[in-house]
Amino acid sequence: MDARTGLPVVGMVGAGQLARMTHQAAIPLGQSLRILADSKDDGAALVAADVVVGDYRNLDDLRAFARECDVVTFDHEHVPNDHIRALEADGVAVQPGSHALRFAQDKQAMRERLRELGIPSPRWAPIASAADLTAFAAQVGWPVVLKATTGGYDGKGVWVVEDLTAAAEVVDSGTALIGEEKVAIVRELAADVARSPLGQGAAWPVVETVQENGICVEVLAPAPGLDAELAETAQALALRIARELDVVGVLAVELFETTDGLLVNELAMRPHNSAHWTIEGARTSQFEQHLRAVLDYPLGATGPTAPVVVMANLLGGPDDVTPKGIDERVHHCMAHWPDVKIHLYGKQFRPGRKVGHVTALGADLDAVRQRAHAAADYLMNGDPR
Amino acid sequence: MDARTGLPVVGMVGAGQLARMTHQAAIPLGQSLRILADSKDDGAALVAADVVVGDYRNLDDLRAFARECDVVTFDHEHVPNDHIRALEADGVAVQPGSHALRFAQDKQAMRERLRELGIPSPRWAPIASAADLTAFAAQVGWPVVLKATTGGYDGKGVWVVEDLTAAAEVVDSGTALIGEEKVAIVRELAADVARSPLGQGAAWPVVETVQENGICVEVLAPAPGLDAELAETAQALALRIARELDVVGVLAVELFETTDGLLVNELAMRPHNSAHWTIEGARTSQFEQHLRAVLDYPLGATGPTAPVVVMANLLGGPDDVTPKGIDERVHHCMAHWPDVKIHLYGKQFRPGRKVGHVTALGADLDAVRQRAHAAADYLMNGDPR
Repeated sequence: MDARTGLPVVGMVGAGQLARMTHQAAIPLGQSLRILADSKDDGAALVAADVVVGDYRNLDDLRAFARECDVVTFDHEHVPNDHIRALEADGVAVQPGSHALRFAQDKQAMRERLRELGIPSPRWAPIASAADLTAFAAQVGWPVVLKATTGGYDGKGVWVVEDLTAAAEVVDSGTALIGEEKVAIVRELAADVARSPLGQGAAWPVVETVQENGICVEVLAPAPGLDAELAETAQALALRIARELDVVGVLAVELFETTDGLLVNELAMRPHNSAHWTIEGARTSQFEQHLRAVLDYPLGATGPTAPVVVMANLLGGPDDVTPKGIDERVHHCMAHWPDVKIHLYGKQFRPGRKVGHVTALGADLDAVRQRAHAAADYLMNGDPR
Repeated sequence: MDARTGLPVVGMVGAGQLARMTHQAAIPLGQSLRILADSKDDGAALVAADVVVGDYRNLDDLRAFARECDVVTFDHEHVPNDHIRALEADGVAVQPGSHALRFAQDKQAMRERLRELGIPSPRWAPIASAADLTAFAAQVGWPVVLKATTGGYDGKGVWVVEDLTAAAEVVDSGTALIGEEKVAIVRELAADVARSPLGQGAAWPVVETVQENGICVEVLAPAPGLDAELAETAQALALRIARELDVVGVLAVELFETTDGLLVNELAMRPHNSAHWTIEGARTSQFEQHLRAVLDYPLGATGPTAPVVVMANLLGGPDDVTPKGIDERVHHCMAHWPDVKIHLYGKQFRPGRKVGHVTALGADLDAVRQRAHAAADYLMNGDPR
């Protein structure tokens, strides 16, 4: 409880863009997000009042951080589950809890749990050796998708391998792996929901996510032309997973749409790139909703604010334009697209790194999509298509 | 220039709710607002990373603050104009400039300037003595509105006097005053605009403001049933004032609607209560727009996001519920009105003090207004109507 405001204090471990945007959402709720940062220069640390520098892999640092929080939540999945359980044993309120979070931290545990629940997923197997991979490929065919069971993000920790030779380096590296069949997909979708400790659930419209090189580059909300029944199935599936896994906060369910229906690809239990569009595009953003959920507040309305919303990620181009040119690019971008909303994360630009996103809203998908793309492309490359 | 982000640094003098909400708007622009606060416990100081505690009446404090800023702007009008001119003489970029800001700081200067510009205003006169007031009342009739030429806000510094006896205490107090006729009004409106250093202007829809005891309690956007031509006149008037006075940033023009047309009541050159609805209700909020303007960025689109937007202020009730009960009230408010957006300013609750606001959006004025009111009333009084 913050004695100055009479409101509880939410602590977030990690100080990237998700914490930065969560702090932004905390301000109107009368809150100020308490942040455990690696460095004072992290994106969220640049904008928040209550920042502690420490190591999320160090239990003492986590304990010291948690001491001043009414509830602790996460900007990423990399805090060791043992440490989270230790905090819980100390009596710290952690949301989502360690028992839920492990399914976002360990892909093998997630796949096993979804199998138990009868939730459709790509065929998969644990891969500990070349022999395991050979046996699995014999079932599902090449190529096979190899995934590190822990620690991956944005395409890191994922390898699509055409044969045993191509897989050798990864398989022999000692990384714990699962193999998944390479599914023939129509497209990728995301069903983003939130759940409160009491079990209230809320779903945003299902979106289409567009990836390049394993990184999300674009989100179309709602997913264009998605069959209404399939959309409802996806929302119900995500709400069911949230309930069965006892998730508190935002749950992002990444889905493959196939000609035979939906398959669950990945789970994330935190605000997620597929729902950045909700900042302007939904009555309650995912960041506000995550705070509401972890605070055990009732969830907010999730309806859209425009018929079409498109979010385009800003991925660092070949040049680092920080600090040389980004201010000038922002200037021209605003002049050209006065209705496009810019979000910069306070990060150094590196090739392929997510350094921000833009959101465009409107009624016509092609026009909205074109504006979002052109603005994003100009901001990153100085060369609007 | 912030070397970490490559973006300029905006400094705001004052750390109330306007600075708090401006910081919130600064985050997506890649910025972090630098704030000169009276205390570390000020509403904006609770949420921002870059806070300097100092006295805005002290030129040394202002100079030290300005040294790390690329441009300095204001949360209130109370910084002595001489100090602002001294900063300008030092080479500090101050927006709006001292030459513009004086018309928001000195009501007599404002009235004289509007008279020169031929802009319709209530009849007025400087009042230095009982004789001045007698002469003025003989022209315009009683009651007369007395206003302190400097330092007033939220009904403070304004006295409606029925006769000379009632006016005696104020007139004899030594406060510099002007008298204004008590105009018969249909209602109060506000025309909020922004202007960039290069002269780009942008106007939001004209709104109706509802006052109680001189304090704004409610804003209806757009002003219900306002004649389209009159709305355009109001916007053009506000843009003209911004241009003629060389305002940079947001300019709020408070207007009286009368049966004979519009009269200018007050000017403010900063984000203003009459445009808080723009956070959710317009494509670009007044806080983002103020930042764009003072940064010499192009202005953003000002179109509405819903047919009807109602903002209701949260004015502290008779009980100070901080820290006892506000968290519980927020909880129930969110349960009852999941689509109403809550904004708390991190301030201690005192009777009549603005401690936050709520915003409701929709299509039907009566329904939206009822939701905004009921939520605000419940948050403040624990007793929804």
